[in-house]
This record gives sequence, C-alpha cells and structure tokens, in this order.
Amino acid sequence: MFKTSKLVFSPRVRKSPYFDSTMKYGAQAFTVYNHMYLPIAFEGPEEDYKKLLNGVQLWDVGCERQVEIKGPDAEALSQFLTPRNIKKCSKGQAMYAPFLDFKGGFINDPVMLKIDEDHYWFSLADGDSLLWAQGIAAGYNFDVEIIEPDVSPLQVQGPNSTQLMAKVFGDWIHELGFYKFKELTHEGIPMVIARMGYSRERCYEIFLQDHSKGDELWEMLWQEGQDLNISAGTPNVILRLEAGILSYLGDMDRTNNPYEVGLDWMIDLDQEDDFIGKEALREINLKGPKNKLMGAEIHSDRMTVFNSEPWPVLIDGKKVGSMNALVYSPRLDKNICYTILDIDHANSGTNIVICSPDKELKATLVDLPWFKRN
Amino acid sequence: MFKTSKLVFSPRVRKSPYFDSTMKYGAQAFTVYNHMYLPIAFEGPEEDYKKLLNGVQLWDVGCERQVEIKGPDAEALSQFLTPRNIKKCSKGQAMYAPFLDFKGGFINDPVMLKIDEDHYWFSLADGDSLLWAQGIAAGYNFDVEIIEPDVSPLQVQGPNSTQLMAKVFGDWIHELGFYKFKELTHEGIPMVIARMGYSRERCYEIFLQDHSKGDELWEMLWQEGQDLNISAGTPNVILRLEAGILSYLGDMDRTNNPYEVGLDWMIDLDQEDDFIGKEALREINLKGPKNKLMGAEIHSDRMTVFNSEPWPVLIDGKKVGSMNALVYSPRLDKNICYTILDIDHANSGTNIVICSPDKELKATLVDLPWFKRN
Repeated sequence: MFKTSKLVFSPRVRKSPYFDSTMKYGAQAFTVYNHMYLPIAFEGPEEDYKKLLNGVQLWDVGCERQVEIKGPDAEALSQFLTPRNIKKCSKGQAMYAPFLDFKGGFINDPVMLKIDEDHYWFSLADGDSLLWAQGIAAGYNFDVEIIEPDVSPLQVQGPNSTQLMAKVFGDWIHELGFYKFKELTHEGIPMVIARMGYSRERCYEIFLQDHSKGDELWEMLWQEGQDLNISAGTPNVILRLEAGILSYLGDMDRTNNPYEVGLDWMIDLDQEDDFIGKEALREINLKGPKNKLMGAEIHSDRMTVFNSEPWPVLIDGKKVGSMNALVYSPRLDKNICYTILDIDHANSGTNIVICSPDKELKATLVDLPWFKRN
Repeated sequence: MFKTSKLVFSPRVRKSPYFDSTMKYGAQAFTVYNHMYLPIAFEGPEEDYKKLLNGVQLWDVGCERQVEIKGPDAEALSQFLTPRNIKKCSKGQAMYAPFLDFKGGFINDPVMLKIDEDHYWFSLADGDSLLWAQGIAAGYNFDVEIIEPDVSPLQVQGPNSTQLMAKVFGDWIHELGFYKFKELTHEGIPMVIARMGYSRERCYEIFLQDHSKGDELWEMLWQEGQDLNISAGTPNVILRLEAGILSYLGDMDRTNNPYEVGLDWMIDLDQEDDFIGKEALREINLKGPKNKLMGAEIHSDRMTVFNSEPWPVLIDGKKVGSMNALVYSPRLDKNICYTILDIDHANSGTNIVICSPDKELKATLVDLPWFKRN
C-alpha cells in the first residue's frame, strides 16, 4: 500500500512518553517527527480508521513539541509571529496560528494555547520553530523566556471519546467547548485537556506535563475504555484527506502562503499590530495567489498503491501542478487526493491527469473538504 | 543488533538526490534527518565498516542541508553565529563551526565552507538552523540573504577514495589539502569537492549543486570504482566511535556546551568580535564545566545488542551519568561506548557500571579517541 523500509531505533531520535505503550499495543510502523518517533500504523491506515469510527482511539502525538513563550512581551511576540489576530483569543482558548516567514511562506502551522495573559504555547508541526521564535525574540529584543517545556500531547479520537474522557476526568468534559481547554492535575498527573485534534471527528488532546507519566496516563484511559471499543491508532491519512486537513511539509511548505492553501480566513491584515509577513501577504492579496490547493477524485477502481512522493498533474499534456497525498476513502468509496495547481487551472470540475510512476490516472478537481466536522 | 521497526515512505519526508541509487545498491534501513531519508545500513554496520576499510565507499548524506549566507554582512553574521574565529578561514577553506545558543548550548554543529568573502555555507547536522540564522539576521538587522540552496553532499570514504576521486575528477585531487575545497563543473554537473568527511579515514565530500544529477554522479563514481572495491555505505557508528566523532542529538544536544564534550579548542574568547554565547562561555570557562564526555570500554565478550536510548551509568550504586552510544569495534576487539558524566567522576581509568535493560555491565573510562586520523 505504502512503500516501506526498515527503521533503526537509535538514541539520536527521542522516544515519546507513550512509546512503550504504543509498542505494547502493537505499533507496526513509525516515522520521525520533530526528532522523535511518531507511530503511523497499528493495523494499517484503513483498519485503524475503521476502529476509530467505531469507538475511541488513542494517538501518541508526543512529537508535537511546544514552544512556550512567557513574560511581559509574550503577547506582543506571539502576535508578531502569526498573522492571526491573537487579541481575539481568551485565556483557556486555543487558536490555529501558523508561523510565516517575511515572504508569507509557512514556517510551521501550530495551534496556539493561551495559558495565561503572559503565557502561550504553540503546539508545533514538524520543524524546529523554537529556534525561529528564539532568534526573533533575541534580535528584536522582546522581553520573554522561550523554552520547549515538558509537555507531550496524546489525542483521544472518535465518537466514544467524550464518554471516555468524562468517565476518566469527570462530567465537566461535557461542557468543554471546541478549542477550549482546562488545566488540571488528575491522580497526580499534571495536564491540560483541550477539545481539539487532528481530525473532524469528536476529539480531545491531553497535554501531559510530566513525561515520566506517559504510560500511566495511557493505561488509565485504556482500562476505562474497555467497554467503549478503545483501540490504538495514529494520525490517520484517510481521515485527514476526507476532512481537508493539511499536513505541514506533506501538503504545503515554505514555498506556499496561506492564500494558496485555503487559509486566507486566518489572516487579519487590518489589525494594528505588525506581524512577520504582513507586507508580503498584503501584496499577495492584491495580486492574487499563483497556486491553489484542491481536492481531486480519481476515476478508477479502488487503488492499493499510494504515492511516496509528489506525482505530476497534467492538463492537455502540460504540467500544471502536483499531487501530494492520495488514499482510498472507504466512506466515499473513492480514491481521493490533494493537488496543488497553477491558479488558472484550479477550478472545481476540471479534468486532470495524474502521472503515477506506472500509469496515467484520470481525475476531476473538487472543492475541499469531503467531510465537515462531526 | 539494533532494535528496529518499519518505516513508511511518505511525501512529508524528502528523498535525497541519491535516494534511487541507494535503493538500487541495497539500502536496508533508514532514519530521518533534516526532514529527509538518511540510509543507515546496507549490509549492516559491521559489514559496511569492513568494506569501507578495504576499498572505497559512497555515503548518501544529502540530508546535510546547507545554510547559505550571502551579502555585505555575511562574514559578520557568520562570526556572530559561531565561537570559532572565522577570520582565520580563507576562501576555499572549511572549518568546523558549531552554532551555540546564548547559554553556550549546542544548537547545531555544522562545518562552515567559505565559498567567497561574502558567501558562506554551513553544512548542518540534524536541526532547522536555517530558522535560527534567519531569525537572528532579521532581528539584529544583518544585511544578508539566507537560503537553503540546492546543495546535496555525497561522501566518498576509505583508503581508495583518493584514487577514485583522481580517476574521475583529475590529478589535482592529490593536491587538495585537508579541509580545503574547490568549485568545479564536471561533465555538466556543478559541484564543490572538499577533502573532509564524517570519519577519520581518507575521505572527500562532494557538494552536488543540482539535485537532478544525483544518480548520474553516483553512477559515474560507481563505474570508475569497479576495480577499487567500491561499495555503498552510510555514516558508520563503529568508525564514528573509534574516532571520537560526535553525533548531534545522539552524543550531545542543547543541554551541553563545548567544554563538556572536548570542543573547547574551537572557542576563541579573545577575539574582538562578539558572538552568541560568548558571555556564557566565559563564565563556564571560569567555573569549569559540570559534565564531561568520555569513552568507556566494556569488560564483556563481544556484545550483540546495542542501545536504542541512553543507559544510566553508576559508580558505587549512584547515578553519575549516562551512556549514549555503544558498538563492538572489530579493530579493537572491544565493546566501546561514549558516556557523559558528572565532572567529578570523569577520570580516565575509573571503573563504572552501565545499566542495560537486561544486566549491569562493568566498564572502564578512557580518553577519546581510540583512533586518530589516517
């Protein structure tokens, strides 16, 4: 299905606090993410997907490292680092808040948690943005302390997730709003519990604040989940594509700006404060972006071989973009994928040809997403 | 020997320009390094090591990404980023030039290449130091352009490397000094050839400047190496440990400073120019470091199971440090390792106990390295 090789575990790459649990419960494949092992398959993307949709699933995303910004200038620096208007974010609230460079290109696409008025976390995708934040803070003389704190997220995904979370942590879970969070200590384990996660299914993210308690937290959830169809899973490529969720470095990178990938809604050019990339974004907004990320549906029987690198996209024999992520969606019974295309050709309904190494695939462009949030 | 799992190839992680060649010639295992696949075994560390010592070997180190600093302030910024005195480096010369943070901790340990008076490359270990350099440059207002250029190193290692390089590129190779390099275009392939590499054996590093020509370059060397015992290999853990060479994130990280890992020789506190970490290093130098990296020899028969994470080191039952890297050296017929220890216990000849998950191992501390440069 996906091309594989062997991965050697070495001390150069760190283990998550949940690593032993993921091995115990059958992790079969890993990748490396933020210098840590990230499990990416238990029984396989499709089997894991089905189990998630039938119960509740634990995902070790301890590799989502946090950039913690604290101090008198924490708000000012946080605002300088992202085009979101973070003044609209309250304490106890989270916000998708990408980091851009001065040309408007993505450096990372973290979720920000406003822990306190002078205390922020940015929960990173793959990339050492800690260095970016620290370099900027030093050079521009922001009065802050920036570290990577001892925080390791675990996601609880699926239709039974609310029931499991309430069973373990209490009925207040039912009241927790979307992108809201609460700090607590449960049975001696310090954590932040947020209602969010890397799918459109019902989900929670537990930000464990003591790496020595990872397996204990995992077991606590696992035991209470026995009658709720609990399983172990990983960030799932089928759920991601169905929902139109982006993967940094997979679907977009520093060569892309928010206008190209459907994230212009998060840019606030009208706010008074300056932020990195503001000038460049203003110009892109004026001229219009050059590329656009779109979905596509492939006209073929259920595919069993997926891409391990981008595949060229053609219209009338001319290259107009590339296809970056492809899966078979059981719910749609379709082969679906993401493409990034020259803006002139990025129109819903347009027929394209995707060049796999073996053959040409006929496909039609569609708007994202296929599924909205449950 | 080493604990392994499965690695899934996905478009999120990039392939090196030599990737197809490494697959063709039998790469069996990979890790991820700077968001790219790095092959780490063909026949296995020991078999690969023996082949290298009996001929010449190609290593795909395309994952060593370059930070290119260019412009009027290129020298000033490069100097600000490292404690080396880079004024001592001439055009056409390379220099090991780590990046430190303001506390003196390692952010990365690149080799710097002075391409021109206003043009530098820093050839990175694992970590997005591009973001660090760009953040610092923007904030401190250095007049430079900083990018990751299209440069992908390939190492040519082993006793027959000079003969192979001369056969392919010409007799001038014999005159190339240690840590010197030359820019050239050979059969339409632009590159920089340096005499250096990640071992103490005779070696060269080819900095390919056109990623589309990776396999062509590899084949060119492979064909000419047929009568020179050419093989495919990878950065080798046995050669590394024997030679006392460090691996960033494996042997030292941001919690370590140069005084702790035997790199104080590269610090120039007396230079007039300021650099990041200067004040902190001055203080550490005055007080003395708290830890020290040392070698150790384990008293046991040839070991076959190595560590995939640090193991605790004890003296008289008390934890005094950790063991980070362990292999069996065929040339020494010994199990050798690196330890990092509280400075009070870091003395050559001291007996220690290393706690593997299975049993306690008796060992004796020794000075590094076991082998000097050939």
